[in-house]
Amino acid sequence: MKKRRVKMDLKEIRKEIDATDDEILRLFLKRMDLCVGVAKYKKENNMQVFQGKREQEILERIKSESPDDLAEGAGQLFTCIMDISKCLQQRILSDAPVPHFESPKIQPVRIACPGTKGSNTEEASVKLFPDSEIDFYPDFSDVFEAVENGGADYGVLPIENSTAGDIRQTYDLLAKYNFYICKRTQIKINHCLAAKPGADIKTIYSHEQALKQCFGFLKGYPARQVPYANTALAAEMVANSDDNTIAAICSERCAELYGLETVKRDIADNPDNTTRFICISKRPEVTPDADIISICMSLPHTTGSLYRMLIRFALYGLNITKIESAPVPQAKQDIKRETFDVVFYLDFEGNALDPEVVRLMTILEEEMKYFKFLGNYKHFD
Amino acid sequence: MKKRRVKMDLKEIRKEIDATDDEILRLFLKRMDLCVGVAKYKKENNMQVFQGKREQEILERIKSESPDDLAEGAGQLFTCIMDISKCLQQRILSDAPVPHFESPKIQPVRIACPGTKGSNTEEASVKLFPDSEIDFYPDFSDVFEAVENGGADYGVLPIENSTAGDIRQTYDLLAKYNFYICKRTQIKINHCLAAKPGADIKTIYSHEQALKQCFGFLKGYPARQVPYANTALAAEMVANSDDNTIAAICSERCAELYGLETVKRDIADNPDNTTRFICISKRPEVTPDADIISICMSLPHTTGSLYRMLIRFALYGLNITKIESAPVPQAKQDIKRETFDVVFYLDFEGNALDPEVVRLMTILEEEMKYFKFLGNYKHFD
Repeated sequence: MKKRRVKMDLKEIRKEIDATDDEILRLFLKRMDLCVGVAKYKKENNMQVFQGKREQEILERIKSESPDDLAEGAGQLFTCIMDISKCLQQRILSDAPVPHFESPKIQPVRIACPGTKGSNTEEASVKLFPDSEIDFYPDFSDVFEAVENGGADYGVLPIENSTAGDIRQTYDLLAKYNFYICKRTQIKINHCLAAKPGADIKTIYSHEQALKQCFGFLKGYPARQVPYANTALAAEMVANSDDNTIAAICSERCAELYGLETVKRDIADNPDNTTRFICISKRPEVTPDADIISICMSLPHTTGSLYRMLIRFALYGLNITKIESAPVPQAKQDIKRETFDVVFYLDFEGNALDPEVVRLMTILEEEMKYFKFLGNYKHFD
Repeated sequence: MKKRRVKMDLKEIRKEIDATDDEILRLFLKRMDLCVGVAKYKKENNMQVFQGKREQEILERIKSESPDDLAEGAGQLFTCIMDISKCLQQRILSDAPVPHFESPKIQPVRIACPGTKGSNTEEASVKLFPDSEIDFYPDFSDVFEAVENGGADYGVLPIENSTAGDIRQTYDLLAKYNFYICKRTQIKINHCLAAKPGADIKTIYSHEQALKQCFGFLKGYPARQVPYANTALAAEMVANSDDNTIAAICSERCAELYGLETVKRDIADNPDNTTRFICISKRPEVTPDADIISICMSLPHTTGSLYRMLIRFALYGLNITKIESAPVPQAKQDIKRETFDVVFYLDFEGNALDPEVVRLMTILEEEMKYFKFLGNYKHFD
């Protein structure tokens, strides 16, 4: 009998909840109507559409009128209502100016790459620009400099690795040079042991990182390990040497390039080692099939600020595929931990010519102290 | 006249908005009361408290009853209401079991460090454990192995660098070994040019990364650059060599350690190069003054899932200080881009003995397919 009674009660309560929800929905829709009215008046009279002060007043009133244990929840609810209302107003009122982007250059083009021939970056460049000329530069910053000075049309650089994470230097240079991402691809990093035919291997040369990544294989291999500047240079050195006891760890493609024999392939401990590469350009280029947008912005270091930023993406139905707060804050910011802004890097799915995306980015640009569009591009698998 | 009329209208509309808000608040509080009733009934009758199906039904009904341009917003509003209600129910109903953590070991302890004497990791270890014995191991995984086997009480490893970003390998090993972070510190990385007194420098040895970080200085310095395994080993080699024309780039502390003279200090291009180090332990240790919590969890790859996870932090008033989605998804996950889960690394402010924090972590553990507590610790500046 008791169980039945409970079920009845539950049914009753749920009915009451549903009725309450209907009322809340009705009032929510009424409020949205009123807000659209406010926005229209303001626009007609050239008044500022969004006023932080009024918002703050509403939140304070709501919290003061709620019981203590629900004040925080009620505050969140009205923050949510006002965020939805802002998005709606913006959708109705903004003229959503269609941004202008450059068209991609016609191939063949000149590509700037960091490092040496035979590197993974070269492989990525060939994948992105099959018929182009590739020049090699010692450092990442030299690649940016070459594009800046017109010595190259585009640059290709690593941006993210599945085992090592973000390549922060590339992000920093993108911001410094005010450049844009216009293509992306990824390369599965494979390591092989390469030597001259008939070699009696006693010493293995490679980049420190590559030696580490083949730790399991090398543990069982009776040879001395010597760190070298990079994998391609190690392969080149082995190829040019008369020493018949040395080998290199490099990519199979690189071994082939320098005429070395693959003694053992796929020797990395983790077979799923992938690096992503981006193509950078001086001016933003957006093609109609571009479907990844990268942005960078700062948020105040306060509870809920990230959540409020993300509700905008949810309301516009835009899917975030990557988010990252910037690493270790600099010393000067650490002094006032409560107040410093946090910088975020975000990737989301969309095309920058889509009016909804333009509106979202306009909102973010208006609201964030710092906002930078890093590019809209396609990933080439 | 016109302006005055508009102002009147605005005032009227705002009054109506305020009245609507009061109604919404009243209904919201009523709904929360009803939900607490439901939860209590369920608990008394050992029924499952949270039911995803009922939630889905409510959302579908609400959306279908809203005009098209507001359906998404109404859906977000009720998602928000139900999330707030869940948090409230959990706060009222959960017994919030106080978790048990180990006490820190009494110093002196044995510390395992990757690398060599004179490294920045050694400096971090000394900062965290002034009176302890430090053993050096070739690789990061050897450090974990030493702690696992009892060869060391704790390990100290780099976790994040201000220019290079996260050190993903450390995170991966934390997950693999099921270890915990129990302390954190940071070291300002300084590079100096070091040689034997009276040297006539023609060649400079250092780790590739260090050579890159001193690019600006080296450009104007007439010497050949040679990459070396690491900065400390380069300094040791220069100290032990009879060659009077070689120098190393290393930390000042390291130069001193190997009896080298600092030829030029602070030669890095970016003076704010900081690395964070963590102390790892086999069992979770939490002290009452620990104020940073690191967690790792998976989220479904759908619009708004990140936002829904973050509302929980906002409702509990807990401040997120770091967020990062895991790098490049593995190949197998790329096949079904719509459905794969994204792994996030989060730091937030709090102590794991605080009942509010315990409740939040209980919710996250229940709701996420994968959730791991990575530690609660203090940062030593």
